[in-house]
Amino acid sequence: MCVISDSAIAGEDQPSIVQSLRGLIYMELVIIGPTRDLHSGSYGGTVHNPVQALAEIIAQLHNPDGSVAVTGFYDDVLPISDADRVPNAYAEWRNESWLEETGAPSAWGEAGFSLSERVGARPSLEINGMAGGFYGEGAKTVLPSRALAKISCRLVANQNPQKTFEQVRDFIASITPPTVRAELRPLGKGGYPAHVDRRDPMMRAAITAYEQGWGKTPVFDRGGGSIPVVADFQRELGLPVILMGFGLNSDGLHGPNESFTISMFHKGVDTAIHFLEAVAAQAK
Amino acid sequence: MCVISDSAIAGEDQPSIVQSLRGLIYMELVIIGPTRDLHSGSYGGTVHNPVQALAEIIAQLHNPDGSVAVTGFYDDVLPISDADRVPNAYAEWRNESWLEETGAPSAWGEAGFSLSERVGARPSLEINGMAGGFYGEGAKTVLPSRALAKISCRLVANQNPQKTFEQVRDFIASITPPTVRAELRPLGKGGYPAHVDRRDPMMRAAITAYEQGWGKTPVFDRGGGSIPVVADFQRELGLPVILMGFGLNSDGLHGPNESFTISMFHKGVDTAIHFLEAVAAQAK
Repeated sequence: MCVISDSAIAGEDQPSIVQSLRGLIYMELVIIGPTRDLHSGSYGGTVHNPVQALAEIIAQLHNPDGSVAVTGFYDDVLPISDADRVPNAYAEWRNESWLEETGAPSAWGEAGFSLSERVGARPSLEINGMAGGFYGEGAKTVLPSRALAKISCRLVANQNPQKTFEQVRDFIASITPPTVRAELRPLGKGGYPAHVDRRDPMMRAAITAYEQGWGKTPVFDRGGGSIPVVADFQRELGLPVILMGFGLNSDGLHGPNESFTISMFHKGVDTAIHFLEAVAAQAK
Repeated sequence: MCVISDSAIAGEDQPSIVQSLRGLIYMELVIIGPTRDLHSGSYGGTVHNPVQALAEIIAQLHNPDGSVAVTGFYDDVLPISDADRVPNAYAEWRNESWLEETGAPSAWGEAGFSLSERVGARPSLEINGMAGGFYGEGAKTVLPSRALAKISCRLVANQNPQKTFEQVRDFIASITPPTVRAELRPLGKGGYPAHVDRRDPMMRAAITAYEQGWGKTPVFDRGGGSIPVVADFQRELGLPVILMGFGLNSDGLHGPNESFTISMFHKGVDTAIHFLEAVAAQAK
């Protein structure tokens, strides 16, 4: 089997095992207008500003209801089965902790899905960054020649990273006005979504390990992140994969001042020992 | 009188005198979402991404016809009088040179106005820069906590920089969704638009100077840029202002590799000498 400890846990008092991960495709979009930066007085009002054009394109990538507007984006997404739903109590707990973790004024996203489902069971399209023109201290009256955005999609169920890239590319081409040029290229080949089998004997060993190492039965959760090698292990090697991670949502993953909580390190060690014992017991 | 050489000329073979300049108000807009950068997998689809929200706000600042959508923006703009129109032949020449100067795929802007009029006689709202999240080489799957834009408006006729700032501020407040916070602040106090009197005797001396120093009668043009001190000289000191600039549109003003053409330097010296002689002759 394959055990990967690169995922989050629900909370210090509530262990969880990740049953699915989202796939990923990352892209870079460049919008090109004039061949050089221009004086915004001499040309402002006659040139389609690439930063503005980029904003107009990005604004069209989502519908007002929070869903992704890219044509065909949801074609290969499967509905959430009843067996795969997380318990209501857990979903409610997640809603409350979300506000504390993010500090955002209020939640956002696709209508008709809980926060847990939006992160774990639905695909997303995120603008990871955007830049163009002058953005330092003070003022510069420039009309920039180009603007850039980093865009990534998290994928679920039967979505395919290459197909999703092509859908985004074709959609952006269809909404790019003739006053600018748009170039979209993938960064990397992306990764497929992954789903682990809850009935695998190794998974039963993992549940036992959490019960003994943590003192509490783990819930099954969906991870919103991506570990592309999970799908590769499953597809290429036919191995069961157990996602036994110990990160907390408050660790600031991928942000500044990322951290790891020491007590989780010790609990993780205990759980790993019990896991090896439980696997050995099954082998007897 | 006051002579300022900080404006452009139509071309090396066609001198022009600037008869009006646009005013300016410069602003910085910050959109704030979560209190820290987040992992785009763990939170993507539940947080209104500030970069996306900024793009959605910027996209609403212009109407599809190229006009500015800010409520009341055009209230104090005067229609262009027949006497103030630039000659048709010049406007056509300007259209042709525009494509060469900018290298943009095609012109853009407010319907119903020539490129010369859009730059010189109509106000504009420009995004001078925008940044948020990760925009370096490669990929980072971050969901940023904030995004920034530099916005400036060029003003004409009776527009007032402070009033325009308030109009933009109120409009952005009205379209900002509850999922993010928006902060708009002015950078500097801005400058009023300026218009010079073509019938002033000093202007007649300037025309004579171009005819003798350049060998060609200058056309009157509207400058799209801003020199806030022009309105200050007129309002506070009651002085006539002559805008006798020698920059070419190909000089790359405010852009990288900004330059000044040496032959324009010599023609400018000749014209300045003839101007002093013409002023002296008037004083006799």
